[in-house]
This record gives sequence, C-alpha cells and structure tokens, in this order.
Amino acid sequence: VGKSTKIFILKSRPSGDVSADNFELIEEDLPGVKEGEIKVKTRYLSVDPYMRNRMNNVESYVSPFELESAINGNGIAEVVETKSDQFSIRDLVVGNLPWQEYSIIDSKRVEKILTDEAISSTAYLSVLGLTGLTAFFGLLDIGEPKSGETVVISAAAGAVGSIVGQIARIKGCKVIGITGGEKKCDYLKNDLLFDEAIDYKKTPNIRKELRKICPQKVDIYFDNVGGDISDGVLYMLNNKARIVLCGQISLYNLNRLSMGPRLFPQFLIRRVKMQGFIVYDYANQFLEARDQIKQWLLDGAIKYNENIIEGFENLPTAFLGLFTGGNIGKQLVKV
Amino acid sequence: VGKSTKIFILKSRPSGDVSADNFELIEEDLPGVKEGEIKVKTRYLSVDPYMRNRMNNVESYVSPFELESAINGNGIAEVVETKSDQFSIRDLVVGNLPWQEYSIIDSKRVEKILTDEAISSTAYLSVLGLTGLTAFFGLLDIGEPKSGETVVISAAAGAVGSIVGQIARIKGCKVIGITGGEKKCDYLKNDLLFDEAIDYKKTPNIRKELRKICPQKVDIYFDNVGGDISDGVLYMLNNKARIVLCGQISLYNLNRLSMGPRLFPQFLIRRVKMQGFIVYDYANQFLEARDQIKQWLLDGAIKYNENIIEGFENLPTAFLGLFTGGNIGKQLVKV
Repeated sequence: VGKSTKIFILKSRPSGDVSADNFELIEEDLPGVKEGEIKVKTRYLSVDPYMRNRMNNVESYVSPFELESAINGNGIAEVVETKSDQFSIRDLVVGNLPWQEYSIIDSKRVEKILTDEAISSTAYLSVLGLTGLTAFFGLLDIGEPKSGETVVISAAAGAVGSIVGQIARIKGCKVIGITGGEKKCDYLKNDLLFDEAIDYKKTPNIRKELRKICPQKVDIYFDNVGGDISDGVLYMLNNKARIVLCGQISLYNLNRLSMGPRLFPQFLIRRVKMQGFIVYDYANQFLEARDQIKQWLLDGAIKYNENIIEGFENLPTAFLGLFTGGNIGKQLVKV
Repeated sequence: VGKSTKIFILKSRPSGDVSADNFELIEEDLPGVKEGEIKVKTRYLSVDPYMRNRMNNVESYVSPFELESAINGNGIAEVVETKSDQFSIRDLVVGNLPWQEYSIIDSKRVEKILTDEAISSTAYLSVLGLTGLTAFFGLLDIGEPKSGETVVISAAAGAVGSIVGQIARIKGCKVIGITGGEKKCDYLKNDLLFDEAIDYKKTPNIRKELRKICPQKVDIYFDNVGGDISDGVLYMLNNKARIVLCGQISLYNLNRLSMGPRLFPQFLIRRVKMQGFIVYDYANQFLEARDQIKQWLLDGAIKYNENIIEGFENLPTAFLGLFTGGNIGKQLVKV
C-alpha cells in the first residue's frame, strides 16, 4: 500500500479566476522512508483562501507554489510507516502536507494530535488549527476588543469569521456579521448568536444598513474580503477604530489592479489603526491559545462548523468553492 | 488701543479649492475684560493644512469653523490687559487664538512662553509647538524607528516633515524625503542632512525611483500628502512596515471622492501597520517631548525653518500657499 501515490500539482498559474485547469492529478512512485522520516496516509486536507496567493509567482509571507510540483497545505494524516522514535503506526499528525494520498515527510515538520473524545481530530484543521488561531490572535491582539464595543466581520460565516464573532461575543461586544444569503444569516444569528447579520447580496448599500442597525458606529472591523463590502464598513468607523486585515478574498482573483475610494483621510481624522498580520507571528503563543479555545468549546461558548467534501480528487473543486461563497465554516476534504 | 479689532471670518465654505473669497475681513468692537480673562495683541499666527478640513461642515477631531465667525488657530500674542493673576502685561502667550488683531480670551486657554535667549518665541508655533510635537510622536510612537531602518517622508520640506526626517536621522535611520523642486531637495540634503531627496515634480514614477535608491525597501512611511505620491511609496514597503498617517493634503481640496488603487492586499501580505493620529492624544507627554526637542535644537542636531509673511491681512494668502507647496518649513504670519 502506498508504493505510489496520487498527487495534485500546480499545472499553470491562474490569470484572473482560478480554475480546475490550473491543477493536474498525476501519479508517482514514492521513495523509501529514511531515518527521521515517516510515511503517512493523508486523511483530511484543508483548503484556504490564502492559498490563492501562493498560486501567483509573487513573493509573500509564504513562498509561491512551484509549477509542476505538489500543492501543499494544512492537513491531517495517519502514520503508516515510521523511522522516527516520536511517532508510532496509527498516530494522527497535523501540519503542512503535500496534496498527496501518501507522502514521506520529515517527522519534525508535523505535530501529533492527542485524540480527545470530546473533540474530533478535524478540529485541529479548523477551530483548534490555524483558522481558529487566526481568529483568536487577529481579534484579541490587533482588534483589542473591549466590552460594549461594536465588531463587524466580513465573510462572517466563513471559517475564521465565525470564530471571530463568537470570541467577540464572549468579550462582551455587539457582533455584526456580513455574509451572503439568508441561510448564512440565519446561521449567524440563530446558531452563533450574533447580534445582527447583513446579507450583502440583498444589501446594495452596506453603509446605509450599518447606519441603521449600528448608530453607535464600528469599533473593530475584522476584514476577510476587502473591496466594495469593506468600503461600506470603513465609512462607519468610530474614533480609534481598529481594522484587522485578515483577508481580501474579493480581490485575489483579479488580474488587474482594482480601484477604490481613497479612504485614508477617513482613517486620519478618526485615528484608525489598520494592521495586517499572519498567524505564524504568534507561533510561540499557540499552545495557550489552543487551550483557551478548547475550553470555550467544552463550555459550549463556541460552536464550529465543518463542511467536508469526500474524495481526494475533489480537492480543486473544494478550493474553487471558497471563491463562490457557498460554504459555512471550515472547508475540508476527506481523502 | 484695541477697542475694536480686525477679524477674519469664514465667509463661505469652499467647494473644491479653497480661495481668498472664503474669508472676509471685518472690524468689530471688543467687549470689556472680565475676571479670569486677558486681552491680547496677536503677534504671530500659524497656518496649517489641517485647518482646511475645519472649513468643511464635517465632524472631525476638531469641530468645523462656524460661518460668519472668526477663524482660529495656533498663535502667539502679547498680554495688553489682564484680569488674571497668572499673567502680567507684556507676557507672551501661545495657544489657540482667533484670527483677530486683538482678542479677549480665557486665561486658562493659553500658556505662557518662558522666553529663552537661545530660542525665538516663534519656535513655540513650529519646532517646539504642535508641529514639532506632531513629528515627534508620529515618528517615535507610531513609526517606532529602529537604527538602520529606512524612513520615507512626504512633504518632507514642510513644517512637520522636516522635523520628522531629522529625528529619524538622530535615531540612526536612512532618511529619504519626497518634496517638490530642486531648491527644496537641496535644502533636505545639504541643510537637514537627509540621505536622499526625491523631487516628485521631476519623478513621474516614485516607485521606480525608490526601487533604485532604496533596494532595501521602506520600513516607515510618514505620510503628509496621500494620493499618487503615496501610492508609489506604498508598493515599496517592507514586511512589518509602519505607515504614520499624519496628513493627506493632496486630497483636502477635492470636492468629490478620489479613487486610487486598492492597496490593502499589499498591506496584508506585508503585515503592515497603518495608523492615523492627532497630536492631542499625547498631551500629557508634551512637556517631556518639548524638553527633548529643545535639547536637540541647542545641540545643533535639529534645524528648523520658518517662513514668515508680514501683515494680518495676508493670513488667507499664507494659508492658500500651503496648498501650492511653495514654502519651506513652517508657515507663519507676523501680525
């Protein structure tokens, strides 16, 4: 088993919208396992918006995917062969994995999942993984929410946004989510207990809507989307508001520069702070943060949703789905 | 003397470019001096870009000027009559003053200038006043310069920019100023010892120019102008760069929304922090900061330039001059 493996490689770099043609499924033989390495069978792979940027040949905080090489991203795998004394057969590991059914990896590059009856292993790719940690540090460290403040979140039903809103609620904030479609609005209000949800598909003027439901204006904007939706929020900021710049998914598929209103004069007179971040900046605080999130989960203070597509060959489809806004919560692929 | 006074009032709010027609010079009688008040003869008045925003009827960190009422701004005046035990005749005071030759003010609203042979009183409107303090706190608190970093400043020969660059130099940074015209470039390099000066009037592509003179990219951008010039700099930011949002003078005279490239994806992947501020946020640290700036002045580490126009009636002209970029250093009017 696992002498050869299916692999998704980057076949071409997208120009504009990413498409299934940018990926190619190939099959290759695997080499033997060397000292310090483990062979794993991939169980789950995570698809995330930031991966779109890695498909471009642009230097960023993570290096671009290489053409003709395996795509890689966060995943969970089971150890099937080991030459590392840190791992035994059947251990579950989480970390950056190639988009392969089987792979041979340096044992130092993954982390063992301590299985827990109360929490499924997939949580390590969502609420307890980089997604949850991104929500945690972005909101708490950059947003610095204070009780009674108003927090607006874009892509609020997404993997990160849905956790941000719940942490904001725990911190005593009024939480307003922006999302697309009635189903997601209901999810935010009824399941996640957001104070308000705005369906951007039915709301031509976000600014006007916010003026109505949020006369006290916005203290924290946790931005996952950028573009027109964000513009509407950015006109409604309070003095000393904070903008947590987490994603700009509405702009990732554009192959030309997008133009928008110049908002810096607004930021100036309102003394706004805007900050981009990546979750790895907080790596030395991951353990504590994960303990805190786990506690909230066990207390029922935080809920999370995973949208799991089955089948290795569906990885590109799952990834493309991120850009059409169909999913609620974290998008995973079960291999 | 001073029974009546000349007054510049706001006659109309500008739509687009501010013009002399927006001001009107009138003459009015002054009431008597009441307990706790002083009558002062204005000596110098400061004209500042932020005042343009006060001419609009828009709520900001300072309230708008009122129509048919005196313009006001920072100034130095001499006490000519006193019903306050804090001030004596001939004391010099600094503070927010109406654009009047004479005025009667609450003594608690101004501060006595302790005259000092080494430093002229006008310094309290420039390098030791709000201008110098704006440079000081914007650069040091928001910019957080570290030795060896690269600092770019727009409107670098202006009142704030020229001080920012010199403090950055004291902190061991490489300093690049953007300004208009050869004379100002020479001033920055030869008088203020900036490492580089870019003449934006002769540089159609700021980004390209920066790529040439600054391959190490930009760690701090101290922005006084906004618009196209800033766009060029913002493409050249380093990871974890800081943008100090101090002014956006290129946009103040526009009566429609200006459009520009959407740069937030850049800010995101570079983990940029951008922050607007006003100097009054640091009011409880003004004394210390002023002591530090004074020390730098006395040591010869900082130079400053004041551009003084004579004549009360020239106040509007001096103010309009801020938007044509003619002046070097601080623009004052000697009454």
